[in-house]
Amino acid sequence: MTQLRDVLAVDPESFRLDKVDPKGTPGLPDTKAVRKDAKAWSKEAVAAIGSELAAYQEKLFASAKSGQTSRRVLLLLQAMDCGGKDGTVRSVFGGLNPTGIKAVSFGPPTDEEKRQNFLWRVERALPAAGQVGVFNRSHYEDVLVVRVHDLVPENVWSRRYDQINKFEAAQAEDGLTLVKVMLHISPEEQRQRLLDRLDDPAKYWKYNPGDVTERARWDDYQAAYQDALTRCSTVANPWFVVPADRKWYRNWAVATLLRDALASIDPQYPPAGFDVETERQRLSTPDSHGS
Amino acid sequence: MTQLRDVLAVDPESFRLDKVDPKGTPGLPDTKAVRKDAKAWSKEAVAAIGSELAAYQEKLFASAKSGQTSRRVLLLLQAMDCGGKDGTVRSVFGGLNPTGIKAVSFGPPTDEEKRQNFLWRVERALPAAGQVGVFNRSHYEDVLVVRVHDLVPENVWSRRYDQINKFEAAQAEDGLTLVKVMLHISPEEQRQRLLDRLDDPAKYWKYNPGDVTERARWDDYQAAYQDALTRCSTVANPWFVVPADRKWYRNWAVATLLRDALASIDPQYPPAGFDVETERQRLSTPDSHGS
Repeated sequence: MTQLRDVLAVDPESFRLDKVDPKGTPGLPDTKAVRKDAKAWSKEAVAAIGSELAAYQEKLFASAKSGQTSRRVLLLLQAMDCGGKDGTVRSVFGGLNPTGIKAVSFGPPTDEEKRQNFLWRVERALPAAGQVGVFNRSHYEDVLVVRVHDLVPENVWSRRYDQINKFEAAQAEDGLTLVKVMLHISPEEQRQRLLDRLDDPAKYWKYNPGDVTERARWDDYQAAYQDALTRCSTVANPWFVVPADRKWYRNWAVATLLRDALASIDPQYPPAGFDVETERQRLSTPDSHGS
Repeated sequence: MTQLRDVLAVDPESFRLDKVDPKGTPGLPDTKAVRKDAKAWSKEAVAAIGSELAAYQEKLFASAKSGQTSRRVLLLLQAMDCGGKDGTVRSVFGGLNPTGIKAVSFGPPTDEEKRQNFLWRVERALPAAGQVGVFNRSHYEDVLVVRVHDLVPENVWSRRYDQINKFEAAQAEDGLTLVKVMLHISPEEQRQRLLDRLDDPAKYWKYNPGDVTERARWDDYQAAYQDALTRCSTVANPWFVVPADRKWYRNWAVATLLRDALASIDPQYPPAGFDVETERQRLSTPDSHGS
């Protein structure tokens, strides 16, 4: 059976972002329930996957606590403004245990961060062994907004693709399973979402006039994404492009990619590091309290 | 109407931990639904409070993003081993947005942490403006386990109560709303929970033989808690003791305390920092993309 990851993975040789339909639903199961009401189906499917994710998360956390493994998982989300990164995090991570999550949002670098290599702040934000992390934006901004706005010279950003690949490869060797997802929306959908924010005072805080300015550079951003996606989609750390105009499809697709990544790790509860019968005895002897 | 916080708050003059029944349910509403099936009622009540918490969390996050406020909230959990700290976090924070949560667990200090003042690692772990934090254990361990096991001399730990009060008072001035909760279980309940962990291989990883050793010091721990609870329950930063043998009561009580803390802040969405009509116009002019 074809896995969703095979449908959505970026093939560096042949991938073309402009051929991906942001309204598409690739890999969607063709069942009665989906045909009847895809939104309702997705809500139930995402909740069920959420339970699977919570179970995997506990096992991953438990196995790391025993010191046996350095495995950890990171969902990395990139998108144009209004692409749905926040909504995806809320939907996909809703059922997980906050103690085992490391959620990090990246904004423009601070002065201190600017003095360091661009990967410095990223390395510090990685999940620890046993954790599930999520990045809202990432080091890819350093070949996206930085390139579109010439924030560093081309001979600097153009070397970053290789630097990113080496960095990610080293992390993979160190137990990191990276799930890199670009949420792909259309300019029309972005415009509608920006207008929606202007229609609801409870959403004003999400509206940034700068986003409208950035829309004028849409094609430059798509070109920068095309290069980032193809130059940094490797066998160990592939990129996935998820059509994201339809939120119900997006939530299902990202939850599925994350679930399948955890399933491939297949974390296990560690065995007892003590003798169970001895401990039962200790708990029934009078020198322990309260029995 | 009496609020739950008034029922559970520690009065430094009169509080006696040994008079609190760990099986009690103080402040529980006396309604038909509760009398019929308190567990089922609690599950629904906690889910409903979770929705309120999520709404408050978004407003708190939004108000901080606008730079208008440094308000932030921290739930601090202390308990004897098996007291239910992890389960409480899962239950109470289940519906919140992970991006706005800062969850920190404190273990024995590292060598680096030992070289610093005991509050050093705590200050670094506080939630940022707009975040809701949760501490699983805290700086109170420095007057609990540290005192019971003489890890520092008495003239060091005995000064810490005042140091803690000053630290917390300064944070309150800086916008931190601190909800300090001790989950109070009985030694019999602890014994049962330890035995349950020995009965289920999926729970072995939570079982620590050292916990049985610590049970022999139960009364010393209770005395240390008595002092910490009364010496550090202030008007600005009161302690709450939640009877925790019944998990359904515990979850409801902690969720309610946290909800009421956020309600007293009453965070608001910030007003638009731009002209709404101008922005609508910008989004409909042809120099913006895709329309």
